[in-house]
Amino acid sequence: MLEYQAPERDLEFLLFDLFEVQKAWQDIPAFADFTDDLIRAVISEGGKLAREVMTPISQQADAEGSRWEDGVVTAPSGFREAYDQLAGGGWLGLSGNPEYGGQGMPKLLGCLLEEMFWGSNTNLYLYATLTVGASICIDAHGTEEQKSLYLPMLYSGQWSGAMDLTEPQAGTDLGIIRTKAEQAADGTYRISGTKIFITAGEHDLTENIVHLVLAKLPGAPDGTRGISLFIVPKYLPNADGSPGERNGVASGSIEEKMGVKGSATNVMNYDGAVGYLVGEENSGLACMFTMMNYERLSVGLQGLGAGELAYQQAVRYARDRLQGRAPGGPQNPDGTADSLLVHPDVRRMLLTIRAYTEAGRAFAMLVGLTLDRGKYADDRDSQALSELLTPIAKAYLSDKGFESAVLAQQVFGGHGYIKETGVEQIVRDTRIAQIYEGTNGVQALDLVGRKVLRDGGRVLKRFVEYMSGETVPDRYRDALSAEFDRLGKVTESVLARSGDDVDLPGAVSTDYLELAGLTIYAWLWARMVEVAGDDAFGQAKQQTADFFFARLLPKTLALEQSIYADSSAVMAMNDTTF
Amino acid sequence: MLEYQAPERDLEFLLFDLFEVQKAWQDIPAFADFTDDLIRAVISEGGKLAREVMTPISQQADAEGSRWEDGVVTAPSGFREAYDQLAGGGWLGLSGNPEYGGQGMPKLLGCLLEEMFWGSNTNLYLYATLTVGASICIDAHGTEEQKSLYLPMLYSGQWSGAMDLTEPQAGTDLGIIRTKAEQAADGTYRISGTKIFITAGEHDLTENIVHLVLAKLPGAPDGTRGISLFIVPKYLPNADGSPGERNGVASGSIEEKMGVKGSATNVMNYDGAVGYLVGEENSGLACMFTMMNYERLSVGLQGLGAGELAYQQAVRYARDRLQGRAPGGPQNPDGTADSLLVHPDVRRMLLTIRAYTEAGRAFAMLVGLTLDRGKYADDRDSQALSELLTPIAKAYLSDKGFESAVLAQQVFGGHGYIKETGVEQIVRDTRIAQIYEGTNGVQALDLVGRKVLRDGGRVLKRFVEYMSGETVPDRYRDALSAEFDRLGKVTESVLARSGDDVDLPGAVSTDYLELAGLTIYAWLWARMVEVAGDDAFGQAKQQTADFFFARLLPKTLALEQSIYADSSAVMAMNDTTF
Repeated sequence: MLEYQAPERDLEFLLFDLFEVQKAWQDIPAFADFTDDLIRAVISEGGKLAREVMTPISQQADAEGSRWEDGVVTAPSGFREAYDQLAGGGWLGLSGNPEYGGQGMPKLLGCLLEEMFWGSNTNLYLYATLTVGASICIDAHGTEEQKSLYLPMLYSGQWSGAMDLTEPQAGTDLGIIRTKAEQAADGTYRISGTKIFITAGEHDLTENIVHLVLAKLPGAPDGTRGISLFIVPKYLPNADGSPGERNGVASGSIEEKMGVKGSATNVMNYDGAVGYLVGEENSGLACMFTMMNYERLSVGLQGLGAGELAYQQAVRYARDRLQGRAPGGPQNPDGTADSLLVHPDVRRMLLTIRAYTEAGRAFAMLVGLTLDRGKYADDRDSQALSELLTPIAKAYLSDKGFESAVLAQQVFGGHGYIKETGVEQIVRDTRIAQIYEGTNGVQALDLVGRKVLRDGGRVLKRFVEYMSGETVPDRYRDALSAEFDRLGKVTESVLARSGDDVDLPGAVSTDYLELAGLTIYAWLWARMVEVAGDDAFGQAKQQTADFFFARLLPKTLALEQSIYADSSAVMAMNDTTF
Repeated sequence: MLEYQAPERDLEFLLFDLFEVQKAWQDIPAFADFTDDLIRAVISEGGKLAREVMTPISQQADAEGSRWEDGVVTAPSGFREAYDQLAGGGWLGLSGNPEYGGQGMPKLLGCLLEEMFWGSNTNLYLYATLTVGASICIDAHGTEEQKSLYLPMLYSGQWSGAMDLTEPQAGTDLGIIRTKAEQAADGTYRISGTKIFITAGEHDLTENIVHLVLAKLPGAPDGTRGISLFIVPKYLPNADGSPGERNGVASGSIEEKMGVKGSATNVMNYDGAVGYLVGEENSGLACMFTMMNYERLSVGLQGLGAGELAYQQAVRYARDRLQGRAPGGPQNPDGTADSLLVHPDVRRMLLTIRAYTEAGRAFAMLVGLTLDRGKYADDRDSQALSELLTPIAKAYLSDKGFESAVLAQQVFGGHGYIKETGVEQIVRDTRIAQIYEGTNGVQALDLVGRKVLRDGGRVLKRFVEYMSGETVPDRYRDALSAEFDRLGKVTESVLARSGDDVDLPGAVSTDYLELAGLTIYAWLWARMVEVAGDDAFGQAKQQTADFFFARLLPKTLALEQSIYADSSAVMAMNDTTF
């Protein structure tokens, strides 16, 4: 059975010792009230909700799934009550705009709470994350009227959000969407068409659902420059803000999927549905990217939460399961066998999960910190850095989350393949994180193409310089320095070769993203050991860091070599030969 | 929807051009009748069965699952008819002993047919593979009477086999099983206890089920030296060989699992069931290993078949799906978008699957060839080599099969996560191959501990020398030679360090197995290009080999570095700290 405990000790270490949040926030007046005690209380309350309310209904939700009948979608048992607690506790408006009922908390705190919520119940949190994302989008691009009407309802969780992008013929390539919008006499729009894969597009958890829909106006330019964004509520709000008449938007069906079965993935049909323009006509994709960038980090946090959940299950099983004897002789001579923890290869698996998860947590919080400094301290370097790091966070955290879930399942042996232990559910639920919100291949191309090549590697180089300037323990200094050099050298090579070879960025992007991820994790591991004390917690950090440097970091040797390969390695084969 | 085509062209290339089977068999009189034409006919018939009979019922089997009611297990729709064709065509007795109704075909051919059967319908073939394994075990260790009674029934598929090892407290560690056997007055035995995870332990496809059960006799030595092996038929055979009285063995339930849902995984209860000893008392584990070694290669072939199936789905989707434009400008200017095949990162994923699958096929056939030479030509070196290669085949083929399935799913994007396309089923069904028949961690330990350390690396070195002596194209010679040196150097290092450090073999075994796998695949790629012609088929081989050398083989750099790490990297942490 799945059990989950929020990693509170590690979170506090990262906040107070590694990132020294109070120092990092000292020029942000909006955060002046967030004392260490308040932060501790938030973590503790969030952890309690995750552990006691969200975790216990996760496996049942997988077994039951969401149900669709005549356009009505029913979420799994217990979801309504748990969602009400999530919403009622103010967790959905945590980082929301205080002018409209949000709590104005730092994104940094939002990140660590999202890790808990994803980790404890991915299926349930999928109903929440789109709500948070929709509120961010409306806050950034909505009119004053739209903000006043929708934000309080979204922050309070009375209404939920959805992000309606994908169509049967248009996934990654949003330039070819067919959903149409036409302006009506009253200035609103009428939306017609069909979207697929709409998470939380229809369900029974909230009294209204606010769809953010991409559509094309008549005569709009081809491609992504001709896309507009609309608010399409399930029920049209009355003047007083209460849900009124049913809008012409409905769920045609829900998908049968590999995982996240408790989360309804809808086909949405718009039949002249009333829509309200967000931002300018034909600038919808840029507006949607405000939401999408949030969701990308959030999906990274899904992977991170899954890694932590997987680790906890695997360690518990490894500790309790008696099987075989230690290579050096019995460690538990009175028992029928020793625990799995005596086996070096089991330890290798557990330490791999741990090394990726703890570094991943630090990385996610770093991204949260840069987002906060960009938004609240008008720190342009931090803003640029957050843009560089977002695709890495989405792809690398979700890749490592999936890898961690698979490793945890392997620790369980056959018991990991049957439903009872819940660990196979983590594998299935986490797999989608590598796919949605832009596949990880798309993230890698975004990193190499838009974030590195476009500015000649300027932001990346500045970040590497920053990392290089930080104090780290002697034991890691040379190895880390070699990694910084490697990343610099590889970046130069990709920059130099991409001028003549249009296929090169896409050919090496996935390997490049992993190389960047490993380098950043190496730096974070060294830094964590530097600031951790000599107590048991600090010793565990050092042992995990030692493992990371010795056993996982060498992958950069392979990635470097692979990235030096010509694009012909992937382009030579004829389409017809595949 | 899943579609499958046996890779006939590639199989014939490997048989006739790479391995030159007629030459390899010239000193094996038993194979004199297997002409090239006969082999082609066998491949073609097997391919037809896989494509037309087995593939079409695969997805329905996953949706439906096996059903258990009051001890009666019903296989999914269509399984009975398909199993009858598999059995009726003589496919289960293909490599069986001709004295008892087997067809006496080379294991080499068995391997390539098994790849097809696994690839086309894993769920169905799980009912067959245990039958083949049981017949191999009885042929090797049974009495004349047992062989005469059981083998014809197993080869014809009228009866099926099962392998009953695991108990709730005993998975990898068979030394602690509790199932009891006591000798009765008539010389037979009475078996009591419970086994779990028994694939095909109960079902409705055959008129009888022959369980091979591990149990302990009263006063037997502790651990693995006190285990005996018994035949426990579901129905006790009458004197004329027909199924008679029901034996005291029954299915208590079946498991709900992540995948292979159409294959019934049973809890088996023995209530004083009649058992017939196989081999000597207390030598059961060695007898069972005859079956297990067969199953291990077979499970590797499951991974290989999954890789081929995954590749075929992903290529078809990538070819048809129009999304985005080529980096260098439209390739399909009249369409709404270009096909996925223009995107370098999609090609990277497809080529990765292809490179692992085609090398994996050659590798599996090499293992089959060494098994044949060991068995029929009394070639001791081949026999020893087959023992070295078996754990690599089981683990590396299944790891790469799973990785391939995950990559294929990624090519599909969101469409890979929903059930309809079938690709997510490949991921779920293949995951078990890394776990059962000894987890891949156990295989790695077997490789390093039993197969390399025990003989001081003698067999491995001889194999590396053999590979080094083969002609390869100039373009790969230096790179390949560097890999042989690396494997040799790493092996010396592991041998040298293991003397003082009992934890070292287990700490590095998984990485060592992958290093060995990559080195062998590199050699096979070079050899395939060497013997392939200059036609389109040969060009594709070279392009895939180029990709393998440039993009996948560099992983050895990382593995080498990781293996040089001390065992303290995994052993340092206290059990309580995890």
